[in-house]
Amino acid sequence: MTTPLTTACVLIIGNEILSGKTQDTNLQFLGGELAQRGVVLKEARVLADEKVEIIKSLNECRARYNYVITTGGIGPTHDDITAECVATAFDRKLLLNDEAVSRLSQSGRELNAARLKMAHVPEGAELIDNPVSNAPGFRLENVFVLAGIPAVARAMFITFADSLETGVTIISRNLDVYVSEGDLAAPLGDIARRYPKVEIGSYPFSRNGRYGANLVVRSMDSSVVDEVFDKIVSAMQPLASDPIMDKSK
Amino acid sequence: MTTPLTTACVLIIGNEILSGKTQDTNLQFLGGELAQRGVVLKEARVLADEKVEIIKSLNECRARYNYVITTGGIGPTHDDITAECVATAFDRKLLLNDEAVSRLSQSGRELNAARLKMAHVPEGAELIDNPVSNAPGFRLENVFVLAGIPAVARAMFITFADSLETGVTIISRNLDVYVSEGDLAAPLGDIARRYPKVEIGSYPFSRNGRYGANLVVRSMDSSVVDEVFDKIVSAMQPLASDPIMDKSK
Repeated sequence: MTTPLTTACVLIIGNEILSGKTQDTNLQFLGGELAQRGVVLKEARVLADEKVEIIKSLNECRARYNYVITTGGIGPTHDDITAECVATAFDRKLLLNDEAVSRLSQSGRELNAARLKMAHVPEGAELIDNPVSNAPGFRLENVFVLAGIPAVARAMFITFADSLETGVTIISRNLDVYVSEGDLAAPLGDIARRYPKVEIGSYPFSRNGRYGANLVVRSMDSSVVDEVFDKIVSAMQPLASDPIMDKSK
Repeated sequence: MTTPLTTACVLIIGNEILSGKTQDTNLQFLGGELAQRGVVLKEARVLADEKVEIIKSLNECRARYNYVITTGGIGPTHDDITAECVATAFDRKLLLNDEAVSRLSQSGRELNAARLKMAHVPEGAELIDNPVSNAPGFRLENVFVLAGIPAVARAMFITFADSLETGVTIISRNLDVYVSEGDLAAPLGDIARRYPKVEIGSYPFSRNGRYGANLVVRSMDSSVVDEVFDKIVSAMQPLASDPIMDKSK
């Protein structure tokens, strides 16, 4: 049986994320946007600025997932090595792109060697617009190369998001229930066993000293999502002291 | 030549991080704490709640790095599968641990099958204290298994952090300079080429409409860090309109 899902992997490139210097926020944005568009983010990796590692992950992930999105490492400085790694992973030359030069020249700044580095993309790559600053990202086959700065990464993603081929959209509903996970686990597990193709997640919380959980139901089939959701509500009702809150949008 | 670095990998386990539902904050905490203690976080992976994938990454990463730290998936519900995956990865049985049962019983809640699930750890594992709630994490060889809830993950990490064998500590200094990356890239790249063993990072920022970059120097040798730092200051001085700010702690 072939899966109708379209899958993606995000590669977050940069020592600053691994050293704790910078809090990544691109993953949550991309994961949420992809999910809304019917693309399932199956994995993410945070990689150091090391060519061998980046090339290895690029090749593993582009073979395995429908899409790979990278963030980071496309600036003008010596530690920006993503474009070079993508070229090597695809065994392509890194070439000066005239259109990218033209866009970079719009900044009015001197197009020195460092800025021209940002106009080099692998042979055959298409540029990705950068509506925030001028330096473009690029797409090569199923790999999309974005900047790391969140405002730029987001703006770049939006420019091509609607062109992604999507699989079946995942439908999701979720509720909050004030029952300790240890008490809701058995009835929830029973339902999960009866619906093995439905993803049921339990995310515990503590609010004002009271324990509860957000329960999420996800499936490609909206009627099954509703059915499972209702079964969970019925199973939780006798356990919950407070009304169950439907948190689905 | 053997590397004197002690390395680590973080595996963040949970569909909620990949779907965009939850913003991970454990990675930044762990990366920063590890760096301070002389352990270099070389990679992180965010994995879905899927056994085959988790087991594969556990085995790849524990063979490759000195330490692997996992977060998430050790609660009482059916979607908490981390302990089971660690047991399978190490080819060990998952056994009820008496000490874990005793800790869980301190909550005063009924020790039903779901709560007892949290007292099962792979054969030979040592418990990791949980100072926040009662359910412990565990360590098996070089793999440390923590809860996903940030407050719990942090408290668990602190209980064993001082027992980590550290390599040479990385010394770091950094400065802010109001020069566009495109203008500072050439002189910075020259310095980077002259010191190939020193990690020099450039992280652009825009503040009140003015461009600049935070430049970070990292090495095991503090005198070389100072030397490179001073060279960067000298190289940036003619380019910067504003005083260069030493941001090192």
